[in-house]
Amino acid sequence: MSHEGQRGRKPRIALAIGDPAGIGPELAARMAADPAVNAAVSLIVVGDRRVLERGAGEAGVALEDLGHLDFRDLRNLDPGTIRLGIAAAAGGGSAMANFRTCLEMAQAGEADAVCFTPFNKAAMKLADASFDDEISFALRVLGRPGPASEFNVLDGLWNARVTSHVPLSKVASLITEGSVLRGLRLTDASMRAAGFDAPRIAVAALNPHAGDGGNFGHEDDEVIRPAVEAVQREGIRADGPFPSDTVFLRATKGAFDAVLTMYHDQGQIAMKLLGFERGVTLLGGFPFPICTPAHGSAYDIAGQGVAHPGATRNAILLAGRIAASRLEGAAAPEPSLAL
Amino acid sequence: MSHEGQRGRKPRIALAIGDPAGIGPELAARMAADPAVNAAVSLIVVGDRRVLERGAGEAGVALEDLGHLDFRDLRNLDPGTIRLGIAAAAGGGSAMANFRTCLEMAQAGEADAVCFTPFNKAAMKLADASFDDEISFALRVLGRPGPASEFNVLDGLWNARVTSHVPLSKVASLITEGSVLRGLRLTDASMRAAGFDAPRIAVAALNPHAGDGGNFGHEDDEVIRPAVEAVQREGIRADGPFPSDTVFLRATKGAFDAVLTMYHDQGQIAMKLLGFERGVTLLGGFPFPICTPAHGSAYDIAGQGVAHPGATRNAILLAGRIAASRLEGAAAPEPSLAL
Repeated sequence: MSHEGQRGRKPRIALAIGDPAGIGPELAARMAADPAVNAAVSLIVVGDRRVLERGAGEAGVALEDLGHLDFRDLRNLDPGTIRLGIAAAAGGGSAMANFRTCLEMAQAGEADAVCFTPFNKAAMKLADASFDDEISFALRVLGRPGPASEFNVLDGLWNARVTSHVPLSKVASLITEGSVLRGLRLTDASMRAAGFDAPRIAVAALNPHAGDGGNFGHEDDEVIRPAVEAVQREGIRADGPFPSDTVFLRATKGAFDAVLTMYHDQGQIAMKLLGFERGVTLLGGFPFPICTPAHGSAYDIAGQGVAHPGATRNAILLAGRIAASRLEGAAAPEPSLAL
Repeated sequence: MSHEGQRGRKPRIALAIGDPAGIGPELAARMAADPAVNAAVSLIVVGDRRVLERGAGEAGVALEDLGHLDFRDLRNLDPGTIRLGIAAAAGGGSAMANFRTCLEMAQAGEADAVCFTPFNKAAMKLADASFDDEISFALRVLGRPGPASEFNVLDGLWNARVTSHVPLSKVASLITEGSVLRGLRLTDASMRAAGFDAPRIAVAALNPHAGDGGNFGHEDDEVIRPAVEAVQREGIRADGPFPSDTVFLRATKGAFDAVLTMYHDQGQIAMKLLGFERGVTLLGGFPFPICTPAHGSAYDIAGQGVAHPGATRNAILLAGRIAASRLEGAAAPEPSLAL
């Protein structure tokens, strides 16, 4: 399959306006007027134009600077009904509708990637009690079975995890050769899709001191190491398991491009200390990139126009790089995410 | 019981020379000649004088600068038999003998605190296969039942943990109201002994997002929170449980004096990223402070005289502050460590 004619054009990013009671509208307006964003991608903002215009007012973005904007006006929320800083069903529902439209646009080939300014999980649950997280929502909208996984990206360092929102008491039983294999292959495929030739993936150990030769647990030697060796034979540059209390230090010094962690806090403690609020969350395992800033909807500073746009800009630029690399790939098949 | 006559004098610190194949001898020699150390404490170095003199040579400390030194010469190791950078039973055995002598000196009232330059665990196990860690060794030498616990101290922030060298699969079952209570009381008592009036102790949650209201585990609400509330009624300034991926960020911004973590890597990932190699390890739960630098015996730079003395100096100064505060305490009883 060839993408002739696609080469050379800028990737089209569908950007959903996030929760309207937070900083989502002002960040969307800033992105629409951002020179770096507009140089790299063709932005299509999705939401209610009145909400975007309210955000432009907050951010000090002139409305004429939005004149050029490719906008998909869903007219789904009257900004007069929004109370800043309060989670509400109407706001959560509009964010979900915006996101759904973006996903459908990408699925239909009308966009090459999806981004969104911060959602508020409480508001989304008010709108739809079945809402669990963005990944399962996106899988549902797109009719995909998964697997999919969240990646955190900060200053070029990627972090993915084998287990996430589960009790700590369940983690060890979920660390199987199969689950570690899936995590490693998904990390490798997602990073290759993002332009890495052969990403160097460090695997964090489950147990303290990587089990200390079996004194503090056997999983590192008996489950994780065999999975690492198996993917090495597939040509994946994985290594470990390494004690998790030093692996991020080594990664930040350049030894690795990614750290695959075994459980939620193992990675999040490190990434948040490293400044992950500046970072990007990427949903991997989809046929197109889905990116968002790592920080939340920041109800405490909503409406003030003081939200830092750096992480949102980085999210759009990362989605743009991945989408561009896929467009350039021409005859190359979609990276295998079949696990 | 009064300590009249003890007030005003400098605390006496028994300093064991650590593993002779590493940076222990040069650090001991540097400390003996260190103006800040000598201004704050009366140092008694314990080991083989020939090993200390070798360390002085490595560190560029003139032997006449050691002339004033209070030295307990155990004549237990000929430095000619030491191969730098190689773990050996003779070296490990000498480090253990030095440590044992220091502990016995403190128990006998000949020293107010114990410090040691870095040990090498492999060498100590070669010397005595029953050696597990410094805490159990010290409990055995002193004939105490425990509990005792390791504290990590960095830039004024303390970290202790409820479980340590156990498989991750066992952690949740070891988090009981009793074990959290013990950890909180020991942390509070040890920090009060170190001069904190009422230390602010943050308790890290066991589960991601502190269990998210029970969605990802019940221990945070049903085990940890009741323990926190129980010690609050005793006048301990504990709070939490807080999600562990942000509690260290808050602590480094000054919100807390200590973080009590539930398992080894939860605290160590954070402390090592924060630069804990510069920090101090304190063994708490003993009748006198026992401190050592957080870093190891650094076989890779042994004999070069380039080891940074900062963490060792901080260890001695912390031990000195705690000992001085106990000497000043006069009629005050030993802080209750009976748990």
